[in-house]
Amino acid sequence: MNTVKPELLGGFQDYLPTRMIPRQKLIAKIKEVYEAFGFLPLDTPCMERWNVLTGGSQDFDKSVFAARIVRGAEDRALSEEEMQSEEGFTLRFDLTVSLARVIAAYNDLPRPFKRYQIGTVWRGERPQRGRYREFVQFDIDTIGSRSMLADAEIVLVMGAVMKKLDITRFLIRINNRKILNGVVEMVGCKDRASELFRVIDKIGTLGLEGVLEELQKSPAEWSGALGLNAEQTAVVREFLSMGAGQLDLLERLRAFFKDKSPLGLEGVAELQEITSYLEPTGIAAKQWVFDPSVARGLGYYTGPVFETELTDAKDLGSVFSGGRFDGLTNRFIPDSNIPGVGASVGVDRLVAALEILQKQSGRNSTADVLVTVFGNDLSGDSIRFAEELRRASIKTELYVGEGPLRAQVAYATRWEIPFVIVLGPDEKAANKVALKDMVKRQQEILTPAECVAKLTRASGRTQ
Amino acid sequence: MNTVKPELLGGFQDYLPTRMIPRQKLIAKIKEVYEAFGFLPLDTPCMERWNVLTGGSQDFDKSVFAARIVRGAEDRALSEEEMQSEEGFTLRFDLTVSLARVIAAYNDLPRPFKRYQIGTVWRGERPQRGRYREFVQFDIDTIGSRSMLADAEIVLVMGAVMKKLDITRFLIRINNRKILNGVVEMVGCKDRASELFRVIDKIGTLGLEGVLEELQKSPAEWSGALGLNAEQTAVVREFLSMGAGQLDLLERLRAFFKDKSPLGLEGVAELQEITSYLEPTGIAAKQWVFDPSVARGLGYYTGPVFETELTDAKDLGSVFSGGRFDGLTNRFIPDSNIPGVGASVGVDRLVAALEILQKQSGRNSTADVLVTVFGNDLSGDSIRFAEELRRASIKTELYVGEGPLRAQVAYATRWEIPFVIVLGPDEKAANKVALKDMVKRQQEILTPAECVAKLTRASGRTQ
Repeated sequence: MNTVKPELLGGFQDYLPTRMIPRQKLIAKIKEVYEAFGFLPLDTPCMERWNVLTGGSQDFDKSVFAARIVRGAEDRALSEEEMQSEEGFTLRFDLTVSLARVIAAYNDLPRPFKRYQIGTVWRGERPQRGRYREFVQFDIDTIGSRSMLADAEIVLVMGAVMKKLDITRFLIRINNRKILNGVVEMVGCKDRASELFRVIDKIGTLGLEGVLEELQKSPAEWSGALGLNAEQTAVVREFLSMGAGQLDLLERLRAFFKDKSPLGLEGVAELQEITSYLEPTGIAAKQWVFDPSVARGLGYYTGPVFETELTDAKDLGSVFSGGRFDGLTNRFIPDSNIPGVGASVGVDRLVAALEILQKQSGRNSTADVLVTVFGNDLSGDSIRFAEELRRASIKTELYVGEGPLRAQVAYATRWEIPFVIVLGPDEKAANKVALKDMVKRQQEILTPAECVAKLTRASGRTQ
Repeated sequence: MNTVKPELLGGFQDYLPTRMIPRQKLIAKIKEVYEAFGFLPLDTPCMERWNVLTGGSQDFDKSVFAARIVRGAEDRALSEEEMQSEEGFTLRFDLTVSLARVIAAYNDLPRPFKRYQIGTVWRGERPQRGRYREFVQFDIDTIGSRSMLADAEIVLVMGAVMKKLDITRFLIRINNRKILNGVVEMVGCKDRASELFRVIDKIGTLGLEGVLEELQKSPAEWSGALGLNAEQTAVVREFLSMGAGQLDLLERLRAFFKDKSPLGLEGVAELQEITSYLEPTGIAAKQWVFDPSVARGLGYYTGPVFETELTDAKDLGSVFSGGRFDGLTNRFIPDSNIPGVGASVGVDRLVAALEILQKQSGRNSTADVLVTVFGNDLSGDSIRFAEELRRASIKTELYVGEGPLRAQVAYATRWEIPFVIVLGPDEKAANKVALKDMVKRQQEILTPAECVAKLTRASGRTQ
């Protein structure tokens, strides 16, 4: 047998315990918030049929992973028949298509159907710094309601997640696809809508004048250019000059669209309704804003859209985004037009954000205490006392290696286990244990009961 | 766009909320036990390089999923180069190979390294009733210790998981690969060891005489037959006649191997040591047994092996199995011979077991209460009261659909949400809320504070 390098595939990553422990805490907190709003858990396979994921469309242009079954080493050169069929095993690139399949497949699911799902997804793009081929999404969606209550609730969930993570400096930016489409209607460039949005999205880097300049570029210069005339450009200028705001902005937008775009007015009315639901709740006025320039990644959204920006980690972009969509199940049930609204946390990006914000507390270990083993003849005493501690709900690691006491204490230091117990012949003879406080660097000789009591008090503080 | 059927791939399954809620509870309980023993979380990618998973061996004969990147619909007929390379994307079939890669790749991980990992794995076998191509494993392993303390701890964890799941009627069957290899040594069929084990494993269905008959079958009858002679058969008869037991069995085995198999005696000594560690702990003597016929699925195990059988669901087979292995990292670091011992829960099998044992408690919902919405003009009052309940740590679902009150109550019934709040114009005028107890079918008119207090008391009971 040849020696194999223990290498990862490019674009994939390991999570060693030191990274996993804060990641798990983050996930648990988000789950707690989702459940506090009554969202229900769902799980779907990591692979779907090719035509389920692509909608059977020849225009599908994402980079995805397609799989096939290989039986043993010699079987890898088989024909591609299986993979090329419409049934081919394909790894999901998000959790939303699978949700749509579930909605279409199970008629007895009541609506609104509110579900959360955490899952790994895969994209075949070239790996870059901070961009992986495998990552975890944690989504909520409410399917089957057209009420803006559902949209307002998504905003509340976003705020509640931030609060749960102890993040106070964040801004939820809200826009409405209908408002952007209202602008498209006024400019009269319906068939070039996505190009218009793409340029508008550059306002952060290009500035207002830069965006307007780019919009006026002639297709003679660059085939993708929009070539807006002076009148059209003036409409966009007026729109983008309104800036962000709350009810005041909706007033300005209403005047802007009046008698010109029913669609734009509809979008404004929806945001107005969302405001009426947000106002009586605990979310602070400074934590959300309407921002007509939010155009990025609108994708399949058809109504309100949401992004969450961390004030002290703006470079990361939105850590929690979503919006309202329509017709997601149409590929399965034509013209069903089932509405939905949801949002997705990029778990790894949010973990990175918490590292930047230094909001990651806690330690490297799962155990509250390490029980050492003095020697073979005292192993039974150590294992018995470890079990006694566990019965008292103290997370207790028994050292099961073969190192001397010094190595055992070093092990506790390495994993930041806050207490170490030594049970040597002297302690045994006196029916006592030695308890080392690794933080205070103190040692006490205690009765087993005193030790249990002390660790019980401490374990609440050392999480 | 063509209509697509919302179908699953064969051998894959959805977990709707009604199945997900008990599954999540099970996983949380197992995690709690693993952490109570100080195991640390690890996560690795779902895909590994082909040669990492196979060890670069041409003898690799498992059915696995191999993947490649496909860019859009038209790109599916590309060459197989990528997949055929040693770097090819391959979906993991267990969590153990990835653990071995991690151990080999990160030299700074202290040993013993005790990790737990939950993860989806994939096998390309033909799907059957109860056998899927995608399933979830939940493993613990202790790497880098030759001490039998580590093995005893695995048995304790198995017992603690059963206890946590409220299962009292179970039996952990323990054997040692060295004992079986000792028999092979005595019979003198070293190159046919796995065939011998395969026949011994049939003792449950064939009985002792049936097994012995099969062992004596001549290769002339069937090319795979072992063709043991009378003397060899007598050895196996004596071995298998010893039955299961505890210290008494070890006595008999010691006499059996004496002066004949040093390897067998080593295996007996190891089990003796495990006993000395189990005895002082809380695991009941009736919950574990040494059983020399445990031979199934020994795979890569080299020392003690463990299986957990549920007394009231024996047909399911072992729900929690493991053992000691050696040299798992040898494919990466020749002759490193790093020892390890661990065990794996098949999550889906254990969920099925709990269904059989009717140990699944709890309800279908994540919410403790549903706040209904009387009409558009009262939506703000409902959303505000829902937030008030959440601030009191009551899991509160706001009805965000568009149905009438009757449909809202039916929704609560469907998901077994135990309480429903109605906030209509009469209640609003009196500054009260109506609280429906869906189990007792009673309704009370309460002040908001009384309602919070009542739900706080109840939410402890309705988990």
